[in-house]
Amino acid sequence: MITLSIDAMGGDVGLGVTVPAAVAFLAKQPNANLIMVGDAEQIRADLLALNAPMNRVEIIHATQVVEMDEAPQMALKNKKDSSMRVAIEQVKSGKAQAAVSAGNTGALMATARFVLKTLNGVERPAIAKFLPAQDGHLTLMLDLGANADCTAEQLFQFAVMGSELFSALKPNRAPARVGLLNIGTEDIKGTEAVKQTFKLLKDSSLNFIGNIEGNAVFTGEVDVIVADGFVGNIVLKTIEGAVKFMGNEIRQEFHRNMFTKLGGLAAKPALNGFKQKLDPRRFNGAIFLGLRGVVIKSHGGTDAVGFAYALEEAYHEAQADSLQKIQDGVAAQLAAYQEKKVLAEQASMADGEV
Amino acid sequence: MITLSIDAMGGDVGLGVTVPAAVAFLAKQPNANLIMVGDAEQIRADLLALNAPMNRVEIIHATQVVEMDEAPQMALKNKKDSSMRVAIEQVKSGKAQAAVSAGNTGALMATARFVLKTLNGVERPAIAKFLPAQDGHLTLMLDLGANADCTAEQLFQFAVMGSELFSALKPNRAPARVGLLNIGTEDIKGTEAVKQTFKLLKDSSLNFIGNIEGNAVFTGEVDVIVADGFVGNIVLKTIEGAVKFMGNEIRQEFHRNMFTKLGGLAAKPALNGFKQKLDPRRFNGAIFLGLRGVVIKSHGGTDAVGFAYALEEAYHEAQADSLQKIQDGVAAQLAAYQEKKVLAEQASMADGEV
Repeated sequence: MITLSIDAMGGDVGLGVTVPAAVAFLAKQPNANLIMVGDAEQIRADLLALNAPMNRVEIIHATQVVEMDEAPQMALKNKKDSSMRVAIEQVKSGKAQAAVSAGNTGALMATARFVLKTLNGVERPAIAKFLPAQDGHLTLMLDLGANADCTAEQLFQFAVMGSELFSALKPNRAPARVGLLNIGTEDIKGTEAVKQTFKLLKDSSLNFIGNIEGNAVFTGEVDVIVADGFVGNIVLKTIEGAVKFMGNEIRQEFHRNMFTKLGGLAAKPALNGFKQKLDPRRFNGAIFLGLRGVVIKSHGGTDAVGFAYALEEAYHEAQADSLQKIQDGVAAQLAAYQEKKVLAEQASMADGEV
Repeated sequence: MITLSIDAMGGDVGLGVTVPAAVAFLAKQPNANLIMVGDAEQIRADLLALNAPMNRVEIIHATQVVEMDEAPQMALKNKKDSSMRVAIEQVKSGKAQAAVSAGNTGALMATARFVLKTLNGVERPAIAKFLPAQDGHLTLMLDLGANADCTAEQLFQFAVMGSELFSALKPNRAPARVGLLNIGTEDIKGTEAVKQTFKLLKDSSLNFIGNIEGNAVFTGEVDVIVADGFVGNIVLKTIEGAVKFMGNEIRQEFHRNMFTKLGGLAAKPALNGFKQKLDPRRFNGAIFLGLRGVVIKSHGGTDAVGFAYALEEAYHEAQADSLQKIQDGVAAQLAAYQEKKVLAEQASMADGEV
């Protein structure tokens, strides 16, 4: 059995989204239990109204709610009994294998770091997400906004974590193909930090396929895309904007006149298929990587369908025991990196003596 | 009359693209003349075969061609009689008001910088491009890849040049709305360089609307988007990839079965309208900004339709005398910036004496 803890009050809507999502999720996953944290009375009433299997849900009362625009440090300081924090504490105590929240990203990251701490060898946690690519391929991209300025070592750690996560979730596949997001495929391209990261990745035992450009997000040629949080977040928002823009443009074309409107009716099955394929709710659920516990961030404005996808993401990670695999992978890569560093220093010292 | 010089040999195809594009362009713009640089005999033969108005075309022979994968410094050193270089020299000498090339971007930028030099007050030239947004709006984005690591001063200069260019090309509009590409709209977001740029833009007389996120590329809420060349290039390639990916996904949905195929036939007019609207050839023609002359870079793999759009871009810039406006704008902003700097230093000195 896998238990997930849910920040039931998080997100733009709160209970109106989290409770129906929880009920749908329980119906789909018979081997899962839930802990729902927040206004206990209200949660119970909402669950009962939807005929939830109450024997599979534990309700924990929390007196506070972190606001969507609250400063992370204020939430950390003043909201010690928030639904968000208490949900994460269920992971810390081992009662839950993963926590899911649609709350304020900054506060969630700060609280998760404070409560759970980072893995050994990881300087900064990162935010990762699966993005749709050609032929149903899913591309994992990180960091999506946790860290604006990154060192080469941090980017390298993101690559290790992303590779381990991908392999944990797709155990039948060859080692994850890791690409470094850059402005050209040649070794010499990019910012100073990215050039250094290229060297670290090339020397590592990861399946590093080299620099990739922005379009590779969609081609399926790469499994894990590494970028700093500034670039990653801008790319993510650009993709969201592009999907929305193109959807609007298609709609406009079909509304141009009577003929195109009729054409639109005839094309409805295909257009609906297209819409469904790229429905952002299906890709809801960003993964906080590098913490001593699984935390999934749902989009704050999603509905019950979208939030249920975030619960699925958490469930699959807990099931795959991705955390242990990431921890082991980071430890192994770190040891190899340190060994190489010592050997390199040794070699240069020997050189000096000649 | 406006005269454009064309690197007739540039691009993946060369004459097979540049000559038909030139002929189409001359038919469309009766007030334009062309200088075509390259293999004179071949150019003449190709023009004659297409019944070009020979009295409006000057042919200048050049013995060399810069290869698409040639290192910029090698092109600069060894290809002094290349079609690319001689085309740019026509702008330097004043015979042409703008040069257009589909050649190697790095070599074109290096040659343009060497031959034309940068404007006073501009440290680094940038590459800018108009991108399609909602309701037919065009958003100018820069830098798209000329400079990977940028200082705040350089980003500020890009903003000034972009604003002046936009206003020169859209003289009837209010001052260009300038946005800084970032990972959130709050002042405190972003990398160190971006945070400093925010301050410079806020203190300037530009119509700065603040930080914008990746999706704003498509909403029409901003006219000029400022980013460093690393972020800008990745965003550009991501957009290109997204458009291609979504086009493929739609096509797949319409090919799923007999019914969707029939639906596709009925939807053809609308789908074609959509395809046309976002046809990348319509947005061909990247602008090199910050040089003492107008240079337009066409996509290397475009066809004659796309190359003709790049010629149109050059023509409109020459017609709007964008260069003079950019030069004046940069000078004015630079003077204001220096004045503020001196006053600030003065103020802090006075403070020190108290």
